[in-house]
Amino acid sequence: MDEATGDTTQAAALRNGPDFADEIAQEIELMLSAGNYDGVKTLLEPIQPVDIAEAIGLLPLILQALAFRLLTKNEAIEVYEYLEPSIQQSLLDRLRSGEVLEIVEMMAPDDRVQLFDELPAKVVRRLLAELSPEERRVTAQLLGYDQETAGRLMTTEFVNLKEFHTAAEALTIVRQQASDTETIYSLYVTDRERHLTGILSLRDLVVADPKDSIGDVMTREVVNVSTDTDQEEVARAIQRYDFLALPVVDREKRLVGIVTVDDVIDVIEQEATRDIYAAGAVQAGDEDDYFQSGLFAVARRRVVWLAVLVIANSFTTKVITMNDDVLRQVVLLAAFIPLLIGTGGNVGAQSSTVVIRGLSTQKIQNIGPLKTIGRESIAGALLGLLMLILVVPFAWWQGQGWLVGAAVGISLMAITTLAATAGAALPLLFDRMGLDPALMSAPFITTATDVAGVFIYLRTAAWLLNNAGSF
Amino acid sequence: MDEATGDTTQAAALRNGPDFADEIAQEIELMLSAGNYDGVKTLLEPIQPVDIAEAIGLLPLILQALAFRLLTKNEAIEVYEYLEPSIQQSLLDRLRSGEVLEIVEMMAPDDRVQLFDELPAKVVRRLLAELSPEERRVTAQLLGYDQETAGRLMTTEFVNLKEFHTAAEALTIVRQQASDTETIYSLYVTDRERHLTGILSLRDLVVADPKDSIGDVMTREVVNVSTDTDQEEVARAIQRYDFLALPVVDREKRLVGIVTVDDVIDVIEQEATRDIYAAGAVQAGDEDDYFQSGLFAVARRRVVWLAVLVIANSFTTKVITMNDDVLRQVVLLAAFIPLLIGTGGNVGAQSSTVVIRGLSTQKIQNIGPLKTIGRESIAGALLGLLMLILVVPFAWWQGQGWLVGAAVGISLMAITTLAATAGAALPLLFDRMGLDPALMSAPFITTATDVAGVFIYLRTAAWLLNNAGSF
Repeated sequence: MDEATGDTTQAAALRNGPDFADEIAQEIELMLSAGNYDGVKTLLEPIQPVDIAEAIGLLPLILQALAFRLLTKNEAIEVYEYLEPSIQQSLLDRLRSGEVLEIVEMMAPDDRVQLFDELPAKVVRRLLAELSPEERRVTAQLLGYDQETAGRLMTTEFVNLKEFHTAAEALTIVRQQASDTETIYSLYVTDRERHLTGILSLRDLVVADPKDSIGDVMTREVVNVSTDTDQEEVARAIQRYDFLALPVVDREKRLVGIVTVDDVIDVIEQEATRDIYAAGAVQAGDEDDYFQSGLFAVARRRVVWLAVLVIANSFTTKVITMNDDVLRQVVLLAAFIPLLIGTGGNVGAQSSTVVIRGLSTQKIQNIGPLKTIGRESIAGALLGLLMLILVVPFAWWQGQGWLVGAAVGISLMAITTLAATAGAALPLLFDRMGLDPALMSAPFITTATDVAGVFIYLRTAAWLLNNAGSF
Repeated sequence: MDEATGDTTQAAALRNGPDFADEIAQEIELMLSAGNYDGVKTLLEPIQPVDIAEAIGLLPLILQALAFRLLTKNEAIEVYEYLEPSIQQSLLDRLRSGEVLEIVEMMAPDDRVQLFDELPAKVVRRLLAELSPEERRVTAQLLGYDQETAGRLMTTEFVNLKEFHTAAEALTIVRQQASDTETIYSLYVTDRERHLTGILSLRDLVVADPKDSIGDVMTREVVNVSTDTDQEEVARAIQRYDFLALPVVDREKRLVGIVTVDDVIDVIEQEATRDIYAAGAVQAGDEDDYFQSGLFAVARRRVVWLAVLVIANSFTTKVITMNDDVLRQVVLLAAFIPLLIGTGGNVGAQSSTVVIRGLSTQKIQNIGPLKTIGRESIAGALLGLLMLILVVPFAWWQGQGWLVGAAVGISLMAITTLAATAGAALPLLFDRMGLDPALMSAPFITTATDVAGVFIYLRTAAWLLNNAGSF
């Protein structure tokens, strides 16, 4: 497809994923074994840091430190942030401690805290001790906030202006600080006590008259969060308002940091993974590292939910054993148990899925909980009615008579209605009680519906058997 | 909690969600009924457009147009973009056509295309005809790209520089275009044929020597996508590289637009919703409008999957009826069918969940498909073994003898191993075949496992019964 027009664009078209990194890794390996260090430098120069990190991760262990050393200082810091935690750690061991310290010292505070979260406590203590007093103070401060709060997510490096600055002075400050701060596109104005009094964007500053004072061009109404705001709420706010960054204030309303949009994208993905895992009865880890973890860790993240569901399922068994006289009379009734509880489970899973997702994306708030439950109940009944058309003739035929068909038909309607109601109501109830609604996700609803479904089915059949004479 | 220090920050702390909008809506309604129009203007001035849009949506229909008219022109455009589609349309009907046209004309091209996607074709045709030739051309062009591609997502308004510009000249251009373009933080450099030759950030421009030429300070290696790139791939690229925007080129490699990070956040959430819905056997709509849609639409989005699963489940019924002689001999065997297939289904759901999510977030690419399937198989067997400890003693006791316990134990191991293997393999197979792996999500795996599980269980029991003498 590429035409040979020779422009650089084509060479740099999007080459995502492992194939591209694999290719670079192979080239690096060849050049390094030939001692062609300048070749590696030239090769890596135009490549994005995240792609370099992935390629280094694919190199043999002994070449990783060598390749890493060939990067320029600035590149090295960026690449280091993108490396897998295990490789970050092995580099820490292999590089001379001076080299490492220099990189860790120059990392953005929020990225450094993320790195420290993943390193062994012993290594963190050693590194912390070796940081410059200023960087140590900032890092210790961020590490002091709870996991998954704005305090943990924020960076303390931002452009801080005063109201009395002129636009021209402010632009000079921005120029000076451009290389040290994570973003220069959102600028923050504070008073003498460091209270946030306004914000302005670099766009505002660039179009302002150079003689205007910042106090006149800034926006005084500032959406902000506090250090203990949950990271999901921070992400929702940035998403809702289409912001590039959001200021974080402490309890005394002093500006202490900012959260930027790139961190928020990762939070949204992490929270989505958590919801999806909950829907699949898998416990989410701190990191999305399922494919990095060992077999034991994999089993640990799945066994608890599985055991809970097995125990819940044993009630279904109990209900059947208590009603085994019905089955003894018409053994074919047993053949429809999986179909009935399966359908009920699927309807319940559908309802809980849409309600949990609606709570998570805050789309459900426009209609009240009672209306939601009512809607789902009616939908459940409607779907049960539609499934009847498929199932009852089949049951009539397989069951060799009216009894199984009638029992399946009546209980199918009851089960789907009940499942949809429970699937909508339980997550809403959990949310109202301040618990995570995702705990009431599909697997739990399905299993709970099983017990009720089997009970309804076998009691209906028993009643029909006992009253068979009257038909 | 608020202290009365009088600074504006506190008044504007994060007030997310329906309560805040509800409050504003009530205030607006009171003021409008009292004819206090200036009061409404003052009230709305400091409030974010998205919050105003939500409040207007909560007003009685007759007041919506009135409140909307009180906004300044610039506010009105922003607020309009955030309104629910139904309210956008009712405003179109209620406002004089001149007012509407002015708003639609001034919207960013990508937002206008999103609006047109939701309006009836008749209204779109009328509006298109009334747009200025330039805006009509741009809109028609964007509408010409497929849904969910970079072409649909992009805006055509960006700052376009030439290599021969000096940094000072470029800054003047940025200043002039600041009010018309969606972002001025990413700047794009093209040659005479509009081929993209480089990019630079406003940060680069601000720190550059005013006399430097753009050709010298720009980055020539540009990550870009083409107009037909899938929106999910665009989102992944922006997320991977922490970009604020990504250039879009046409087939002749000419720069035609850019996609910005705020649109990408919505894409990531939309794709996550789609995956979560698939995991719950709900068909995703074009928009995340489940709670806005009527009962019929709700049923339509659920009935197809449900019917497929019911039909699949009828095979389970068939397997049981074909093996009913075993059940006739030991009716208590039936009591363990739900528990066995439930456990198999849950293990299968776990495996398919992590594999589908891994494919979607591209975390799975580092380990190959065969290794993934192998890992999951072993995990399935391990989990089956752990569940044995819970289930077999219970089965022995409830089943009144060794037969049920032995049959349950043997088939449990077989079912969990099979379920985990299928749960991992089927999504990977679908992905390899170019189909959406989410089609092989939990509900399908669960139902498929049911058939195999019941077969294994009843054949094992039959074999044990026939060979009972030999024990």
